[in-house]
Amino acid sequence: MLRTRKAVPVIAVIVLLVVGTVLGRVTAGLGGGALGDIAAERKLTPDEASGALKSFVAPGKYDEYMLVASGGHSGQIHIVGIPSLRLLKTVPVFTPESWSGYGQKADSSESVLRGGSDPAKEAEELTWGDSHHPALSETNGAYDGRWVYINDRANGRLGMVDLRDFKTKQILDIPNIGTSHGGVFATPNTEYVHISSMTPRPQTPDGYAPLEQYAEKYRGMSTFVAIDPATGRGDMAKSFQIELPPYTQDLADAGKKASDGFAFINSYNSEMSIGTAGPDGKPIEVGASKNDFDFLHIIDWKKAATVASGGKTEVRNGVRVIPLQLAIDEGVLHFAPEPRSPHGVDVSPDGNYMVVGGKLDPHTTIYDIDLVKKAIADKNFSGRDRYGVPILKFEAVVAGQVEVGAGPLHTQFDGKGNAFTSLFLESAVAKFSLGPKAGISADKAFKLLDKVDVHYNIGHLATSEGDTVAADGKYLVALNKWSIDRYPTLGTLKPQNLQLIDLSGAKMRIINEAPAGFGEPHYAQIVRLDRLGKSLQAYPPGTDPLTFKPSADATTLGKERVERSGGIVHVYMTAMRSHFTPDVIRVKKGERVRIHVTNVETTPDATHGFAVPSYNVQASLDPGEVVTVEFDAKKTGAFAIYCTEFCSALHLEMQGWLLVEP
Amino acid sequence: MLRTRKAVPVIAVIVLLVVGTVLGRVTAGLGGGALGDIAAERKLTPDEASGALKSFVAPGKYDEYMLVASGGHSGQIHIVGIPSLRLLKTVPVFTPESWSGYGQKADSSESVLRGGSDPAKEAEELTWGDSHHPALSETNGAYDGRWVYINDRANGRLGMVDLRDFKTKQILDIPNIGTSHGGVFATPNTEYVHISSMTPRPQTPDGYAPLEQYAEKYRGMSTFVAIDPATGRGDMAKSFQIELPPYTQDLADAGKKASDGFAFINSYNSEMSIGTAGPDGKPIEVGASKNDFDFLHIIDWKKAATVASGGKTEVRNGVRVIPLQLAIDEGVLHFAPEPRSPHGVDVSPDGNYMVVGGKLDPHTTIYDIDLVKKAIADKNFSGRDRYGVPILKFEAVVAGQVEVGAGPLHTQFDGKGNAFTSLFLESAVAKFSLGPKAGISADKAFKLLDKVDVHYNIGHLATSEGDTVAADGKYLVALNKWSIDRYPTLGTLKPQNLQLIDLSGAKMRIINEAPAGFGEPHYAQIVRLDRLGKSLQAYPPGTDPLTFKPSADATTLGKERVERSGGIVHVYMTAMRSHFTPDVIRVKKGERVRIHVTNVETTPDATHGFAVPSYNVQASLDPGEVVTVEFDAKKTGAFAIYCTEFCSALHLEMQGWLLVEP
Repeated sequence: MLRTRKAVPVIAVIVLLVVGTVLGRVTAGLGGGALGDIAAERKLTPDEASGALKSFVAPGKYDEYMLVASGGHSGQIHIVGIPSLRLLKTVPVFTPESWSGYGQKADSSESVLRGGSDPAKEAEELTWGDSHHPALSETNGAYDGRWVYINDRANGRLGMVDLRDFKTKQILDIPNIGTSHGGVFATPNTEYVHISSMTPRPQTPDGYAPLEQYAEKYRGMSTFVAIDPATGRGDMAKSFQIELPPYTQDLADAGKKASDGFAFINSYNSEMSIGTAGPDGKPIEVGASKNDFDFLHIIDWKKAATVASGGKTEVRNGVRVIPLQLAIDEGVLHFAPEPRSPHGVDVSPDGNYMVVGGKLDPHTTIYDIDLVKKAIADKNFSGRDRYGVPILKFEAVVAGQVEVGAGPLHTQFDGKGNAFTSLFLESAVAKFSLGPKAGISADKAFKLLDKVDVHYNIGHLATSEGDTVAADGKYLVALNKWSIDRYPTLGTLKPQNLQLIDLSGAKMRIINEAPAGFGEPHYAQIVRLDRLGKSLQAYPPGTDPLTFKPSADATTLGKERVERSGGIVHVYMTAMRSHFTPDVIRVKKGERVRIHVTNVETTPDATHGFAVPSYNVQASLDPGEVVTVEFDAKKTGAFAIYCTEFCSALHLEMQGWLLVEP
Repeated sequence: MLRTRKAVPVIAVIVLLVVGTVLGRVTAGLGGGALGDIAAERKLTPDEASGALKSFVAPGKYDEYMLVASGGHSGQIHIVGIPSLRLLKTVPVFTPESWSGYGQKADSSESVLRGGSDPAKEAEELTWGDSHHPALSETNGAYDGRWVYINDRANGRLGMVDLRDFKTKQILDIPNIGTSHGGVFATPNTEYVHISSMTPRPQTPDGYAPLEQYAEKYRGMSTFVAIDPATGRGDMAKSFQIELPPYTQDLADAGKKASDGFAFINSYNSEMSIGTAGPDGKPIEVGASKNDFDFLHIIDWKKAATVASGGKTEVRNGVRVIPLQLAIDEGVLHFAPEPRSPHGVDVSPDGNYMVVGGKLDPHTTIYDIDLVKKAIADKNFSGRDRYGVPILKFEAVVAGQVEVGAGPLHTQFDGKGNAFTSLFLESAVAKFSLGPKAGISADKAFKLLDKVDVHYNIGHLATSEGDTVAADGKYLVALNKWSIDRYPTLGTLKPQNLQLIDLSGAKMRIINEAPAGFGEPHYAQIVRLDRLGKSLQAYPPGTDPLTFKPSADATTLGKERVERSGGIVHVYMTAMRSHFTPDVIRVKKGERVRIHVTNVETTPDATHGFAVPSYNVQASLDPGEVVTVEFDAKKTGAFAIYCTEFCSALHLEMQGWLLVEP
């Protein structure tokens, strides 16, 4: 009894000491209060609390990756931090945007947006586009952090953004195509950026042909836009197109490593349904889903480049076109059957496998590049399509199929032998193994390994660097088309939904989620932020951002002036905290006014704005930038010009007057 | 020894059991692995890990509040979840936006954006605005979740967004003012929404007067826009303006509770500096900072409403104006001195205190409404300004001053007797106590209590419901103007920076941070999400969103048709997964085409889009919505019309053809 009585306190002390130490250790690293208590107070489940810690990027710290996502019909590119899912930046490409003043100026930068509307070709000046498939530039098959290309699905255009300043530098109106969906990629050293047509287009001088002549006169186009290695701009004079049958060309990818030199495009509507106007009177969604197989397009683009230089091409609207028969004759184009109405074709990081997801077939089909090359060499054809394109024998080129689930669309990779496919109908992501050439033993090859539900109706997905040779298998972002009940009801237009999936464990786990309430992130690529080496903090004072060169319209402190020449009032103005010089501009009603503003600041983030009330004038002036705005002084009055970017404590006093005298 | 040897295992077992239990308890709630381990692995400090858990909103869960923030010169409103800081939605107000199709249609909704440009008044049609100060509608001084108003700082306009569908329903071009900065608030029962001029404007028929006649001919205006209680729309015929001296009017706030019926506007540039054109040749930032005191404007708006109805007003450009002398004579307008160049005047939740921050004075100055009322009643004036406005004696109306730090701008409240002021120059938030009328004992009144550094250059701030009688003191968001190094360098235009501060403890703590890379969130209000009661999931099929009533242009399944009348081809089309009916439209070159599309879906989130390539046509169709687009068929060709919103597995097949025949 005594012993017991004495032992209790001893044990108690020891227990308390040990417990204290243990608790101390558990909570010591955690600061004021245990993390578990906070999680409990906020009603976070263990998984949720873990997700919070796995995805949180602390104030002042940087995300590890950025998701470069198209904005769909917002016409923009959106940069989202990974793993935080914070929207880091919006880059306008095909639509004007007044925060940055894009598309609202009168200087060379304005030519970018206007340049995307060919007056000879288009009915209307285009002030919107449907930004769809971003393609980061690559060196040796890995992202090099220099440029981003993106297509306009609506109008068949290609935009280019320079990652030194994250601004759009070029929009190319691609000849001979109407629309363009998923056919964008950069070749492994950005020799070319590929953009293909989606729906075919009449190849007639006036762009018109009756729908009844669809099979005869409509054609698709695979376009290899030649990229200037210094500026990243496309040069249509050095580019070429390959004519394709009038199927609907969709997602495309570049070969890499083992498949370098090849390009792959999948297609649907090989039935050539034209909807209810057609002979069967069926809508397209019925008519285009009849065939069991559509055609994977296999293009030998290095051979095509040689053919394009060979003088047999036909120049059509300013670009060299390899007509379909020439492409067949020269062995540039082959087909392989792919299960009905596929959406994606994606090349594995090693380049050996091309994975196709057919949304009406529950399998992914994996093609092997060596089998493809051999079938081409052996002319192992099952036949030819109606245009004479040779069709490789399905059994001869397929390495395997995996039953992944309902509605497979798009596949990405982890560089560890696994692939991840989005399942639209099932609202899930499936993980499966590739084959021996990706390091998977034969008995474990082409097996479904895991599935995770997403919310809801996933379209594309992106793994970290998963479009490249450097796929690292850390994160996956599901680009879900519907959010339904995931967010509070904020009106009838609901956001898309981004979900971040942790790939580091055996099981995939959703750890973070964010709405995209600013456009549709249709397709995305995830790039390590440390690949951005040359991003500018500020321009040298007096820079034209379009060229990164000194602007002829620049001025410096003390040289500000007003000049009247050529019927135009030219105002050469500086902006510096907290003053515009000159601060008062006097013009007569009816005069044309051009104001050239130079932000003479050299401090990063010392952005100014310049607005003229009632005249619809707004410009954003990053440090060092020169901007020109122009207007007719139609209306008399005293207009308080001002800086639109809160720049200092005296920002409100950074104003002046435009006086339009009667 | 034996005992000891026997005791050790006993103790060890107990210790292990207890430690196991304790550890189990600490980690049990946390699932696979201790939270501390995850935090350590991700190199989160204890404070950071705590911030992660405090601000994380788990996938599928909802934020508790929304921040309704202006977008600055993006012209939009941005809805941000609190505490997650996720961008939940973008609402375009003063700028077109192609994701939602705002400002790009040919139907009644188009009239909203166009309606903001008065052709008789403006030089140019306005396609941008500088959205600045949002004001949520109120009932009994608390947010009622019905409408949001926001001003256009550039052009002196007022926009109204209906929170049933988060769409802009009205833009009013306010007569007799040029620009408008912070002068927006709703009165406690949204009888009126106030918008004042910022810079004064010549009150001349042509809007012009020489700057030299600034003091004589330029005037400011305080505008009380009468709100229709059923629709939330402003009615200028029932509205009135109060003429003000040509100072620069800035932030304003409505009285509430103890101060109900009053309105407060602060001002700067009582020096009436016109910049270098003035007699002293000094820039405005110097000229406007000379006086030790500017004038807090105190308006008895209930008295003003009576005066406005009394027949002594002057109708100027369609609105009743109370001329300055009448306002003085009727006791509608008084001034109180306020320390130089103030930015904010903010009324405490109980309505007793008005806090003014003067950015060139390190104090906040707190006025007492009872003292103000008494001084007015006693005519306790220190004099009058040059226009005859009586100036209340400073000592007679001030309850206290607090030295908060460098550059105080704007103050918010927690409803517990504390106030929070942003310090622009110091990049900090100061917390201080109010006085006895806010429940603080006299010895603890008007004391600086805490400060927290923010990053960087904070402008406005918002506390949860801090603009209302229901301020709850849970969160504070700092709207920081510069981000400098807080985010990776993504070009020369850097984002603003939102920082979330936890107010629940004695010390303020930053727990989360997010960039605003999509516009400048100039001012914001934070409202509990559960106050949104009537937000729609979908419209009844065939609805005109502008009116929420059936649209005359609607059609239903089976009634689709093409009619030619009045020289226009009218296409009445339905959109339903995955089909447009009709799917083929044939017109002749030169015809004018109006396409009326009805989204017949009733499922929430079943949004469709409608695009016509090359014709710059894009519309977003929420479920039930009717949209009309219009164009001249200038160009021949076959154009693949399509759905721009990924709507089903057969979304890509949701296309048709516009054939423009030669």
